[in-house]
Amino acid sequence: MDHAMMETAAETATRLETLQTPCLVLDADKMERNIARLRHRLDGLGVSLRPHLKTAKSVEVARRVMTTPQGPATVSTLKEAEQFAAAGVRDIVYAVGITPSKLGRVQALRAQGVDLVVILDTVEQARMVAAASLASGHPIPAMIEIDCDGHRSGVAPGNAARLVEIGEALSAGGALRGVMTHAGDSYKGGGDAAQQLYAEAERAAVVEAATLLRKAGLSCPIVSVGSTPTAHHAADLTGVTEVRAGVFVFFDLVMAGIGICRVDDIALSVMATVIGHQREKGWIITDGGWMSLSRDRGTAKQAVDQGYGLVCDLDGALYPDIIVADANQEHGILAVRPRSGAMLPDLAVGDRVRILPNHACATGAQHEAYHVVRGSSHQVDARWSRFGGW
Amino acid sequence: MDHAMMETAAETATRLETLQTPCLVLDADKMERNIARLRHRLDGLGVSLRPHLKTAKSVEVARRVMTTPQGPATVSTLKEAEQFAAAGVRDIVYAVGITPSKLGRVQALRAQGVDLVVILDTVEQARMVAAASLASGHPIPAMIEIDCDGHRSGVAPGNAARLVEIGEALSAGGALRGVMTHAGDSYKGGGDAAQQLYAEAERAAVVEAATLLRKAGLSCPIVSVGSTPTAHHAADLTGVTEVRAGVFVFFDLVMAGIGICRVDDIALSVMATVIGHQREKGWIITDGGWMSLSRDRGTAKQAVDQGYGLVCDLDGALYPDIIVADANQEHGILAVRPRSGAMLPDLAVGDRVRILPNHACATGAQHEAYHVVRGSSHQVDARWSRFGGW
Repeated sequence: MDHAMMETAAETATRLETLQTPCLVLDADKMERNIARLRHRLDGLGVSLRPHLKTAKSVEVARRVMTTPQGPATVSTLKEAEQFAAAGVRDIVYAVGITPSKLGRVQALRAQGVDLVVILDTVEQARMVAAASLASGHPIPAMIEIDCDGHRSGVAPGNAARLVEIGEALSAGGALRGVMTHAGDSYKGGGDAAQQLYAEAERAAVVEAATLLRKAGLSCPIVSVGSTPTAHHAADLTGVTEVRAGVFVFFDLVMAGIGICRVDDIALSVMATVIGHQREKGWIITDGGWMSLSRDRGTAKQAVDQGYGLVCDLDGALYPDIIVADANQEHGILAVRPRSGAMLPDLAVGDRVRILPNHACATGAQHEAYHVVRGSSHQVDARWSRFGGW
Repeated sequence: MDHAMMETAAETATRLETLQTPCLVLDADKMERNIARLRHRLDGLGVSLRPHLKTAKSVEVARRVMTTPQGPATVSTLKEAEQFAAAGVRDIVYAVGITPSKLGRVQALRAQGVDLVVILDTVEQARMVAAASLASGHPIPAMIEIDCDGHRSGVAPGNAARLVEIGEALSAGGALRGVMTHAGDSYKGGGDAAQQLYAEAERAAVVEAATLLRKAGLSCPIVSVGSTPTAHHAADLTGVTEVRAGVFVFFDLVMAGIGICRVDDIALSVMATVIGHQREKGWIITDGGWMSLSRDRGTAKQAVDQGYGLVCDLDGALYPDIIVADANQEHGILAVRPRSGAMLPDLAVGDRVRILPNHACATGAQHEAYHVVRGSSHQVDARWSRFGGW
């Protein structure tokens, strides 16, 4: 009996009503629909999916979102790379700029047969990776990060001199794998037309970079883009070989706020228990504070501010316009959204609610496990461990 | 050799330069000064300290802040209660309103000889605790939470009818231990005079409640107040028996922003490594993103917004006006504070910085361990585990 089956069996008799709160609940039906939706989309565009596992940090979720048990996959930490490698994943991109002190762990994973690829955007990093590749006799493949929208890291796609210098430095160590970018600005939203422009800008930037490298006589087999909003809006991915995306597996209120999903698609919630009331203020107090919800207030700048989350009943059905209006470490304050005219539900001490998160990556990270349900069932089918750290 | 000594010995050869980043660094000199400062203050006021261990979530830190290895202590989760109980703590207040589904774990700890006290603010909860006390033949002591400032939970101190009804319900089960309150509004700051008013309001509320209960013929041995700002400003605690406070152990930028400590008193930092630059924008990119710093932006509403944290060199010396201006999951963007005129330090890929957190409770929670140094030394004297979860 494998680990997953043991975990499932151990919770056969568990229901949402008997779990300790706060805890993380995952609706597997919604998750599966979210995965199928993007996979269908990318199949139609002729590109492969390299899911970003930083959202899930769970072997069980990874197995359901990856194309094969061996990958491909994207990670944000070497801890993720090591955990997924231990579970059999063999094709991994570590999508945060590499530093000298991390190369040892990268080389150790590669020596175990994991095709772990690093990313970088400076000549210094390229020389360091090439030198380590030559010194060990085992190339460390690297992708050059391209900055498609000024959001964060990366070489400007038109900066041919720097791009080629990095490419040549990597090639000298047999370490050039390709180019990659991330349309971070797409999280700002703007509607379908804006998202199509973000997606095309993402594609164009990385294809331009690949073209520049190839014109300089360098090999650039992988051309990688990725963000959940652009992945759901790209109309054409000519020249792109793979798409990275993470939060689509669960979705969240930030994604719903910019129209990438419906609120009803959100697969993740935090179950909390009512611990008191301040009736004259219209407050219900729960044990779901920011420690379980995270401090993420990603909807604060959106058209509709969801506070620390939207409140559902134990079936996962929304209480219209009831939000977590404020939160302390282990206290959440449920209240009616200002000016909505909604009524506070009649909840007693001990009653339970499920809170949809602003940001699935941040909220998930506060928890040690997913408690898996399907639809409105209160039956907990499994407990899937998750991990944190670096 | 006990666990602490083993952990210490294992890191004898470790220096900050060789740790993987991001990671949590704790300056034990500063921590010890912070603890001594509050202890000296409370000794002068004739009250005992019941430290809130929700900030540290570490047995090693707990042993340094508690008056004795057995306590007293305050916790925010039953997981903390269980972890500290396993380490020998015997006098614990669980300072979040109790629910029916948590009573089993409370009773299990009490059966092990831990004097675990719960809190509540409704008649329903009091009846439930009294009924469980009578049914088991083992009283579950409870304190009634008083709302001194309208901040969160608690009975209004002047609501004599409700207070006495709760007190009588508890007494019927032999379960009334006392009253407690928390001056949550004191975190808004306002200067020394305002803090002295918050402290006096906190004291007055809980002493008034105790007086009402005693006039009704009920026993109220414990009268408990607590917040880090008021603990450092109370001029008189007549009628109070104990003070709870947590974040003072490490302090943070929110506490510095309201004048409770100096920036130089902050004992906690996140070490991060430079992974790139966007020189034309004045950005240095590090691997210290919000996963390691937390999403807490508690200084955003203060006079000086510190972004996601203030940046120090590896010795812990401040780079004046260099902040973490923005953060993604595993990326932090260092930049000069707007309009400060400061210069960005000359840091290369691979160089390391230490980032002072907005909120020690939130930042600490993102990590599995403290790496302990003293002052500007790079020598890591110990690795102290911490835990999360519920």
